[in-house]
Amino acid sequence: MAQKGLPIIISAPSGAGKTTLCQALKKRLPDLNFSVSHTTRPPRENEQDGVDYHFITKKKFMEMTDRDEFLEWAQIHGNYYGTARKNITDTLQKGKDLVLELDIQGVETLRNLKYRGVYIFILPPSMEELEKRLTGRGTESDNQIKQRLEAGKKEMAKSRLYDYAVTNTNVDESVGTMLAIIHAEKKRMSRYQPDCPEIRKIIESGTA
Amino acid sequence: MAQKGLPIIISAPSGAGKTTLCQALKKRLPDLNFSVSHTTRPPRENEQDGVDYHFITKKKFMEMTDRDEFLEWAQIHGNYYGTARKNITDTLQKGKDLVLELDIQGVETLRNLKYRGVYIFILPPSMEELEKRLTGRGTESDNQIKQRLEAGKKEMAKSRLYDYAVTNTNVDESVGTMLAIIHAEKKRMSRYQPDCPEIRKIIESGTA
Repeated sequence: MAQKGLPIIISAPSGAGKTTLCQALKKRLPDLNFSVSHTTRPPRENEQDGVDYHFITKKKFMEMTDRDEFLEWAQIHGNYYGTARKNITDTLQKGKDLVLELDIQGVETLRNLKYRGVYIFILPPSMEELEKRLTGRGTESDNQIKQRLEAGKKEMAKSRLYDYAVTNTNVDESVGTMLAIIHAEKKRMSRYQPDCPEIRKIIESGTA
Repeated sequence: MAQKGLPIIISAPSGAGKTTLCQALKKRLPDLNFSVSHTTRPPRENEQDGVDYHFITKKKFMEMTDRDEFLEWAQIHGNYYGTARKNITDTLQKGKDLVLELDIQGVETLRNLKYRGVYIFILPPSMEELEKRLTGRGTESDNQIKQRLEAGKKEMAKSRLYDYAVTNTNVDESVGTMLAIIHAEKKRMSRYQPDCPEIRKIIESGTA
């Protein structure tokens, strides 16, 4: 029996570095799959349909929600975002690990569903540093930055939703931690599938 | 507030390679502490008092059990073995991680005490390989090997006592897994102590 893939849920306050870390993780683990969300927001420059998001119309999105095709979905700043159930299930059934980059609402939904996976929260080393990073992007107004910082605080207050905390001081170090978490989680006893049939039988017979 | 050290409980059926792996782990993590057990069995050649074991008399051992100085102790093959509470607590209080190499009885005792730590079980890749390794040692009779194999099966039937399963096919790979487990476990949200006071306050205020 093939081992099912591991769902790895990654979330972070805006500016903590989730996108950078996930890109670096992808480079280190080229076989790792990343879930591609559906969204009704228009593509930004450089964003590719089917790679960054599945860009769909609001009508199509609503049809998908009607058919219960999303594991989780939410409306954020007027746009809809959702994680389609099918792609995830297909990938995991093939025994492939899958990263789901979710916002706090998505994480809350999955936890309420008791969705099994590894929940990783990326945190900034300090609030000053978070503000510096948001300002450094140069894409948001002062007011938007203030809003993102407040939203970040609310997200961090829900840290206990997660299994692991990765303080992103340094990208290489943080990616090293994420690799260690994935490596370790795959060795959890609850996921242990011995190759040796005799050992498998012994363990399955166990009651401890 | 300094983070308390992590207790790492390592156990294995005889012949799975626990001693080799722990020695290799020590080399990779020179700052990692290893608990030194007390025993009433006489030292073997090359064994050093205070390094391999604290070699003590049966009288002394019994006095220590009377004073409840052991976290766990057991009689095995007519000799007594115990883990002194004090050394462990002192090391962990200093924020240092500590490896406890225990037999199955010790692990069962700690689990019954709901002792918090990371429980790692080292398994052989197959029963054939386990027998080969026990035979290869050249230190046990055929009958002793048979006994150890049977004991090993009983221990493996209690695999569910552990958090992690490390199949020891290759020493380097197994040590890599143990390093990843230790690295990851230190990033558990339940052990997260942010350096930034503001972030600490936000997280502590959280209810999620």
